[in-house]
Amino acid sequence: MTKTAVVLLSGGLDSATVLAIARSEGFEIIALSFRYGQRHDAEVVAAQSIAKRAGVARHVIVDIDLRAFGASALTSDIAVPKGRSAAEISHGIPITYVPARNTIFLSYALALAEVSNSSDIFLGVNALDYSGYPDCRPEYVQAFERMANLATKAGVEGRRLTIHAPLMQQTKGEIIVRGVKLGVDYARTLSCYDPDASGAACGDCDACQLRLKGFAEAGVPDPVRYRERVVAT
Amino acid sequence: MTKTAVVLLSGGLDSATVLAIARSEGFEIIALSFRYGQRHDAEVVAAQSIAKRAGVARHVIVDIDLRAFGASALTSDIAVPKGRSAAEISHGIPITYVPARNTIFLSYALALAEVSNSSDIFLGVNALDYSGYPDCRPEYVQAFERMANLATKAGVEGRRLTIHAPLMQQTKGEIIVRGVKLGVDYARTLSCYDPDASGAACGDCDACQLRLKGFAEAGVPDPVRYRERVVAT
Repeated sequence: MTKTAVVLLSGGLDSATVLAIARSEGFEIIALSFRYGQRHDAEVVAAQSIAKRAGVARHVIVDIDLRAFGASALTSDIAVPKGRSAAEISHGIPITYVPARNTIFLSYALALAEVSNSSDIFLGVNALDYSGYPDCRPEYVQAFERMANLATKAGVEGRRLTIHAPLMQQTKGEIIVRGVKLGVDYARTLSCYDPDASGAACGDCDACQLRLKGFAEAGVPDPVRYRERVVAT
Repeated sequence: MTKTAVVLLSGGLDSATVLAIARSEGFEIIALSFRYGQRHDAEVVAAQSIAKRAGVARHVIVDIDLRAFGASALTSDIAVPKGRSAAEISHGIPITYVPARNTIFLSYALALAEVSNSSDIFLGVNALDYSGYPDCRPEYVQAFERMANLATKAGVEGRRLTIHAPLMQQTKGEIIVRGVKLGVDYARTLSCYDPDASGAACGDCDACQLRLKGFAEAGVPDPVRYRERVVAT
């Protein structure tokens, strides 16, 4: 019998790569995406395009509203920081931090896994290029997995749930090389925190900087469209 | 400076008691309730009434939709079991189990605590009268707390978050005795899984059975209205 995995799919390049990895391991895929008060829907549109190309069994999109809680550039009107160097990006917790975001996303994934009789959840967190988010570290993922196995009927009945974070120790360049081998179409992915109305990436926010640096390391051209010509720092 | 606590408030008697306990310990209260595809809004109405009487600083109500995931009597059209004995209720995981519910609720509480600079979350889970839910056990709450302290900026910065579950080892009778001392108005609480259109409790579902048994143990009359005269088993 084919095993089913729940894959958190943001529309970014990491989660698109993780989806391809899960497929390459023989899982049937239930993709899970969120509308969470982003200033734009471009992320969800990208996720739908990626899910369609990958031929997932099901794509669940959940509306959640973190705006009621305030306090982040990704969900309110605080300006997204621009033009920071890789060294600046990798230190400290950025203003684009969304409180408890991965915990909320993984909680929904856990519910979906349980009702789908799935014992495997995949997510694209990364501890190297992790941009300062505490909930992207291996010790966090391990603690969530431990909690999840105490939380659910499946865990109580001995069907052990595994949280897979296959990109945890990879550089952005290594992730891209791996994804290209697996046939990921990175033109469908969106990393930019601040795309314009046409969907063009800014090239200048933390996410664009990390992405451009990754493609440069991988020695592969970035197929997404940028607002202006950008050279990776 | 007054410390702030986030209190998960379902509208039931346990969470109403927990709210009173948190207040008695000097916390300013942010109450957090959910509309999660219940078949009725009566729970949220009860929570609002309880929060108002307790004089909370803020009551946040979050809409989440677990119906997309299916698989529970509390969120779909499966019949609620009736007329089970206390022994039957306390064994096994009931059909009213909502997958990963407490994990999702606590995740939102964690986000709200972080943006509110609160280090304390209270919830009314109970391991004795726990009705078979795996996410009502002490080992689950401890594992969530551990994960939460790895998930957030506050945790990373050394401000330790505590999950308080003050009813964990108390019988329903003990909870009611404690709440009565703290001035909880149990007429405002709702336990029934299947109230009628007027809000009257059925007296016969697992939650009503446990509640009636608790009031009998406490030697206090239950002030809520039932559809018909019910004698506790």
